[in-house]
Amino acid sequence: MSEPTVPASETAEPGGDRHPSPETVIDLLGLLALGELLAFERMTVDAGLTADLASRARMAEAAVGEIRNYRLLADRLTALGADPAEAMAPFVEVFKAYDVSTAPRDFLEALVKVYVGDAVADDFFRAVAVKLPGDDRALIEQVLKNGSAVDFAAAEIRAAIEADPSAAGRLSLWGRRLVGEALNRAQRVAAAHERLTDLIAGDGGSIDELLRGLTRAHQERMKAVGLNN
Amino acid sequence: MSEPTVPASETAEPGGDRHPSPETVIDLLGLLALGELLAFERMTVDAGLTADLASRARMAEAAVGEIRNYRLLADRLTALGADPAEAMAPFVEVFKAYDVSTAPRDFLEALVKVYVGDAVADDFFRAVAVKLPGDDRALIEQVLKNGSAVDFAAAEIRAAIEADPSAAGRLSLWGRRLVGEALNRAQRVAAAHERLTDLIAGDGGSIDELLRGLTRAHQERMKAVGLNN
Repeated sequence: MSEPTVPASETAEPGGDRHPSPETVIDLLGLLALGELLAFERMTVDAGLTADLASRARMAEAAVGEIRNYRLLADRLTALGADPAEAMAPFVEVFKAYDVSTAPRDFLEALVKVYVGDAVADDFFRAVAVKLPGDDRALIEQVLKNGSAVDFAAAEIRAAIEADPSAAGRLSLWGRRLVGEALNRAQRVAAAHERLTDLIAGDGGSIDELLRGLTRAHQERMKAVGLNN
Repeated sequence: MSEPTVPASETAEPGGDRHPSPETVIDLLGLLALGELLAFERMTVDAGLTADLASRARMAEAAVGEIRNYRLLADRLTALGADPAEAMAPFVEVFKAYDVSTAPRDFLEALVKVYVGDAVADDFFRAVAVKLPGDDRALIEQVLKNGSAVDFAAAEIRAAIEADPSAAGRLSLWGRRLVGEALNRAQRVAAAHERLTDLIAGDGGSIDELLRGLTRAHQERMKAVGLNN
């Protein structure tokens, strides 16, 4: 991967604190809010892939944190004078394309998708939080504190692989496919949303660098649930 | 409708307080828990019928109360020594048949289905609560206090009909169809689960009487959102 230098944000102050423009913060919160809303929808719909009522209920309960986080982000958008639906709209197509290309064939694949997606999202939240002004950073920290469905999905995957070790190969392959598709979409978002890219990559960083960091963390997490990468 | 006299439950004490058997309470809580779990799933899946992100998010948030109620009921089942999934299993087919026969064609039909279903469920909760011993009655009262998605759905339907009064006729017809299917399924559940029927209908009541009461309340509620019955 090449490492293009990204121009510093126009709104960055020389040599110090960044003050991203309100529009940039709205872009970012819109992206994050949509991610949470769609994670909730995906989990509740994919829960239908198993007939096991207990698993379905656990998946549904784990999804509740996502919609709670959506509300925090949407309320912040409203407080900034933005319409949440409008702020999310520019990112609908890219998420849809990701979901179409990564439709799980069974409940276990759905769990791996939750695990990979939520863990990468958490890492991304952490990476962007430091670039934001106080109030918005506090909000992102609250979202992270609420917790995602990562622990739930990890426990379910570990139990499933323990019960049937032969599933590990197939799910490892699936995990690689998910992260490949996610990186592909992330690069497209970066290319299409310049001011967002400036914020995320600012201070001498680059989008590719960020994505490499996310990929490394993903690989560690795959190992943690008994999958290869 | 005829009004068959239902034999008093074997476990009823002559002339006084009822003490339904633990098995009967487990049957009832299993039915109620499954209703909440499926209401959650239905709402989150049907939210996908609209592309409007704000509406989808509102539907998702309104569904959270259902899964919270599911948890209360499932925990009570566990405390009674029952497995929640096993307690729910006998009712899966009848709910599935109802959903297959009442698949909404658009978001508004989905909202009416939420409205009718949750309101009838609330009335049913109220009707059975009085038949239960203290702890279980308190639980049902907690479930009712948590609130359902009735108010959410009513507000959305009212706004939609105000914006497009021509939708009222079609949705009124749909509401009648929903309640017809629901009554049909309720009668089948009653016929197949004798001890449950004894509990619900006990003390000289009858299932038909209960269903007539639920239907009358439903008709009032349809009027309240601008629909005919």
